[in-house]
Amino acid sequence: MNKGQLMVISGPSGAGKGTICTEYIKRHPDTFLSVSVTERAPRPGEIDGVHYNFISKEDFDKLIANDGLIEWAVYNGNRYGSPKAPVLKAIEEGRDVIFEIEVVGGAAVRQQYPDGVYIFIAPPSLEGLRERLAGRNTETVQQIENRLAKASAELEIMPHYDYIVVNDTVENGVKAIEEIVASARLRPSQQQEIIEKLQKK
Amino acid sequence: MNKGQLMVISGPSGAGKGTICTEYIKRHPDTFLSVSVTERAPRPGEIDGVHYNFISKEDFDKLIANDGLIEWAVYNGNRYGSPKAPVLKAIEEGRDVIFEIEVVGGAAVRQQYPDGVYIFIAPPSLEGLRERLAGRNTETVQQIENRLAKASAELEIMPHYDYIVVNDTVENGVKAIEEIVASARLRPSQQQEIIEKLQKK
Repeated sequence: MNKGQLMVISGPSGAGKGTICTEYIKRHPDTFLSVSVTERAPRPGEIDGVHYNFISKEDFDKLIANDGLIEWAVYNGNRYGSPKAPVLKAIEEGRDVIFEIEVVGGAAVRQQYPDGVYIFIAPPSLEGLRERLAGRNTETVQQIENRLAKASAELEIMPHYDYIVVNDTVENGVKAIEEIVASARLRPSQQQEIIEKLQKK
Repeated sequence: MNKGQLMVISGPSGAGKGTICTEYIKRHPDTFLSVSVTERAPRPGEIDGVHYNFISKEDFDKLIANDGLIEWAVYNGNRYGSPKAPVLKAIEEGRDVIFEIEVVGGAAVRQQYPDGVYIFIAPPSLEGLRERLAGRNTETVQQIENRLAKASAELEIMPHYDYIVVNDTVENGVKAIEEIVASARLRPSQQQEIIEKLQKK
């Protein structure tokens, strides 16, 4: 059996990567969505185990100490990380894995998994991104300013991803991910079975 | 306007790369199929300007002297090459270009166009490939033996292509090429317009 593929989906806050990932998983329920852990408190509407696994600072310390995280980083004073064990298990079982993570986290994952597929979800325009970030009523003006500055820095890194998907509509965004996944399955690293079959003497 | 993409489609004789390319072009008629030049005589059924541009040895010498070929090589004692000018023109006009060429030629093109998309068309099995090569009635036993030896060498190079498409059916083969083309358009090198738009200060 061929192994699953590791995919990283990043992009600035407000570009809609969460919506695209949710819809993709709905259509391809065998895909494993890596849920990040964080030590921060849930925002209104966030569900434990869905948006994040919300854990204590002490449990986060333990995960780091036990080499249980693929990557972790600090945003706005709180730590976020990607648990390692469930991801490796899913890939061995032939399931694709999606990481929906920040650009900094994506770069950290690539160092360990260079054969992964790295996708950047971009907004169709800067104006729209600004409006969407300002429209969230859950944050202070300072938090919005911080997010805008971070988005600008993330857009600088965009060309270093394997693929850029412009999120003009969710339908187009999901279709683009599907095409990327289909073509990524055709890479030699994912086709060991046929290579061995055709190269046997 | 974004530029067209350069695609190389290679694979052993008998794997069916010609059939897949012909069907793909039929469905995507804006794609430019690079027709190779050769100094050998047409085989029965081969049409000048379609299968190859059949030219004289003297004209082949001139093309080489004028740097008019992207690559050229010798097979079975005859020279084959890929004219440069029509390819560069098509890419500038935003048209995708397909090279249907031998593995050796594909490697030569990659040296000049590392951003191209390199696709290997593989047979579903070695047995089927042998049957198809032996079934051609236009060649001597020695020519068939030569082709089998060449196919074996080409299958060794298969893992160095970007993508491997197993030609079990023409329909699946063409669909795979379509997915590869769609995802290749999402690479940063093909998305200069949106990158510039989002990175402007």
